[in-house]
Amino acid sequence: MVMKPRILEIRKGVLEKNNGLATNLRQRFRNAGVLVLNLVSSPGTGKTALLELTLAQLLAQGYQAAALVGDLATENDAKRLVRSGAPVRQIVTGGNCHLEADMISNHLDDWKIDLEALDFLFIENVGNLVCPTHYDLGEDIRVVLLSVTEGEDKPLKYPPMFNSADIAIITKLDIADAVEFERDLAIANIQNVSPNITILETSAKKGTGMAKWLTYLIKAKQQMQTVSEC
Amino acid sequence: MVMKPRILEIRKGVLEKNNGLATNLRQRFRNAGVLVLNLVSSPGTGKTALLELTLAQLLAQGYQAAALVGDLATENDAKRLVRSGAPVRQIVTGGNCHLEADMISNHLDDWKIDLEALDFLFIENVGNLVCPTHYDLGEDIRVVLLSVTEGEDKPLKYPPMFNSADIAIITKLDIADAVEFERDLAIANIQNVSPNITILETSAKKGTGMAKWLTYLIKAKQQMQTVSEC
Repeated sequence: MVMKPRILEIRKGVLEKNNGLATNLRQRFRNAGVLVLNLVSSPGTGKTALLELTLAQLLAQGYQAAALVGDLATENDAKRLVRSGAPVRQIVTGGNCHLEADMISNHLDDWKIDLEALDFLFIENVGNLVCPTHYDLGEDIRVVLLSVTEGEDKPLKYPPMFNSADIAIITKLDIADAVEFERDLAIANIQNVSPNITILETSAKKGTGMAKWLTYLIKAKQQMQTVSEC
Repeated sequence: MVMKPRILEIRKGVLEKNNGLATNLRQRFRNAGVLVLNLVSSPGTGKTALLELTLAQLLAQGYQAAALVGDLATENDAKRLVRSGAPVRQIVTGGNCHLEADMISNHLDDWKIDLEALDFLFIENVGNLVCPTHYDLGEDIRVVLLSVTEGEDKPLKYPPMFNSADIAIITKLDIADAVEFERDLAIANIQNVSPNITILETSAKKGTGMAKWLTYLIKAKQQMQTVSEC
């Protein structure tokens, strides 16, 4: 019991330090004119599958997009994502259960990617529906994914993550019937926790919902330009 | 950078304190003759569904079993589990991404459950494939669940959790075909990370694999009695 206040104080310090670094990153991204998205979800929700298709479709439409992908171990996700043709860099966290702003800035420095040449930068967080919540990575948009297999009550059980996200993407729609997914209940639960959130429904396997997702991305990028031109 | 060593030191302190409390819990469980299992997995892997059926089947066979269930928010899981007829207590962690030994001992004290009357106590951890790894709860057996929908490479991407577990249970076998689950690959990946782990394959929906799981549990309970009688 003696240690608790000290731990809270340290944690507050860590988050404050992260927030400061994230503010710098956000300014850096704004200056470069790149729209940055932070993808969060449980492990196995399909972040990588959605991202691979998203990168390929953005590139096909003439946009420049890249991805930073975080995992505890392996470079499996980066290997999958490079198939899209986009520049991809793996961040192996070595046990850390979430990405932090300093990992992003360190990897950007090492990577030497030209941010000004990019339209979109996607950051795929470590699969974890809890811990990435509190770590701002300087993103413009936080995207939370919920697969049809996870159970419709997940937003109620993990409210901070859904509440902190700007858009919720329901994934793996192609197996919704097989898992008896209750769509209306899932959507009601997301809206219960986050009333104004945008909700999209997708299947990376079948391509379902990709047109709406691309429209959302391109519109967000255009709005960003409009704001910076004011 | 100045803060890092201090944080590591504090974290070490937290884990040491947790280990001490877990050792006391383990002794308390041993003295009471109750076999304790800690169930860990991603959110939505089916811990609650498997546990509900397990509790009901153990009770039907004349065993006494109870469950402690951890979640960030809601008492949904406890409400589901009480349908089994077993005593159940929800631990709402209020944001904490894993259970810790002090939460278990505090709840056991409040709950006033007679541990000596129990054969089995199941602890359902917060859905998180990373953070519960390092927190010993005094359990005899750590059970990691992997659903057929999560992707066969999850053991490689989250090695500490699979490595620290005594048994891996593959869940949701009933939808294996629908999600094109590659069974041999998943099993090879689990064994790659944890060569001597026991692996069971189940579907709580269809009851598949439950006989083997119950046999495993009852045998572990009997072995515990044999050891304590020596």
